[in-house]
Amino acid sequence: MNTLSSLDEMIAALRCLPGVGPKSAQRMAYHLLQRDKPGALRLARALGHAVESIHHCAKCNNFSEEEICALCRSPKRDASLLCVVEMPADLLMMEQAQCYRGMYFVLMGRLSPLDGIGPRELHLERLVRRAQENTCEVILATNFTVEGDATAHYITILLCAQGIKVSRIARGLPVGGELEHVDSGTLAQAVLERREVTG
Amino acid sequence: MNTLSSLDEMIAALRCLPGVGPKSAQRMAYHLLQRDKPGALRLARALGHAVESIHHCAKCNNFSEEEICALCRSPKRDASLLCVVEMPADLLMMEQAQCYRGMYFVLMGRLSPLDGIGPRELHLERLVRRAQENTCEVILATNFTVEGDATAHYITILLCAQGIKVSRIARGLPVGGELEHVDSGTLAQAVLERREVTG
Repeated sequence: MNTLSSLDEMIAALRCLPGVGPKSAQRMAYHLLQRDKPGALRLARALGHAVESIHHCAKCNNFSEEEICALCRSPKRDASLLCVVEMPADLLMMEQAQCYRGMYFVLMGRLSPLDGIGPRELHLERLVRRAQENTCEVILATNFTVEGDATAHYITILLCAQGIKVSRIARGLPVGGELEHVDSGTLAQAVLERREVTG
Repeated sequence: MNTLSSLDEMIAALRCLPGVGPKSAQRMAYHLLQRDKPGALRLARALGHAVESIHHCAKCNNFSEEEICALCRSPKRDASLLCVVEMPADLLMMEQAQCYRGMYFVLMGRLSPLDGIGPRELHLERLVRRAQENTCEVILATNFTVEGDATAHYITILLCAQGIKVSRIARGLPVGGELEHVDSGTLAQAVLERREVTG
């Protein structure tokens, strides 16, 4: 049987999605071609448009379509507080918990030597520069996983060396818990009970 | 925080993929934007190209970029045999098994009233017309699931009414299968469909 080049290419391309293996990719391709061609076209457009227009905010490093994102531009936020989170989803959880009115820095990951993600890949030098601007306190809200804790510890040493006050959100979260999956009340309590740490 | 329209749109569009919920879609979007923008662009192109160029073969109903697919055009295939399978992946499995040299008809699904898929949605009238062309025998190779069996039963009634010979691939123990480890349904069916052997 002759190969269908554009079907094969579609299946191969779907495998760039995390957690999608050859069987899932095939199932997705058949589903789209058979039952949801408009969905496939919409996805194609959305991917192209997103890749073209979404960059990182120059201040908080979150995804943004503008040079400085709306949150960083807002005059209502407390510029003396800087909260460090791993991912954009964590920032959203913080905002939904309505427990914090300061600024953010999104690491876009966590230290993970096994995956080749070190201080350089996380652009921690940018975080240090950002923290030096006019920040009174940096609140570390990385996950309470091994990697999240290691990241927090590493950042603590970096920032304390610059004489910046650093705190860690309280371990009100269960050990191994992730911000993305915790309820707002627990998260709010953890922010309230943050403790100062030293390197 | 202001909504990122093109990020939201990307996340919403990813949900057209089967088995992808809101959390997975978010994770996929972050992964693509953060780590694999070329992959996202490749996927966008592949989706657009596939939707544009892939249609159904007029004879076997499989996905094809041409009016009649290469397999249906091949003079090496036995046109007197017509094998009915549920999905293109099943056709590929049949070809890999190298046990069959006839033609195919791909249903692109199976009868599933709960999902709103009846005889009309499967275009069974096209299968009947195709079988009437110059077929000596129709081999039903739908899955041995409840729905696959029901589909095979329905097609049998349709085709037998036209005087067409219909067969079903055998059910039994797999090659290398051991009685001790096979499920009782399969074993019972294997006993029921036992064949006479001579020494």
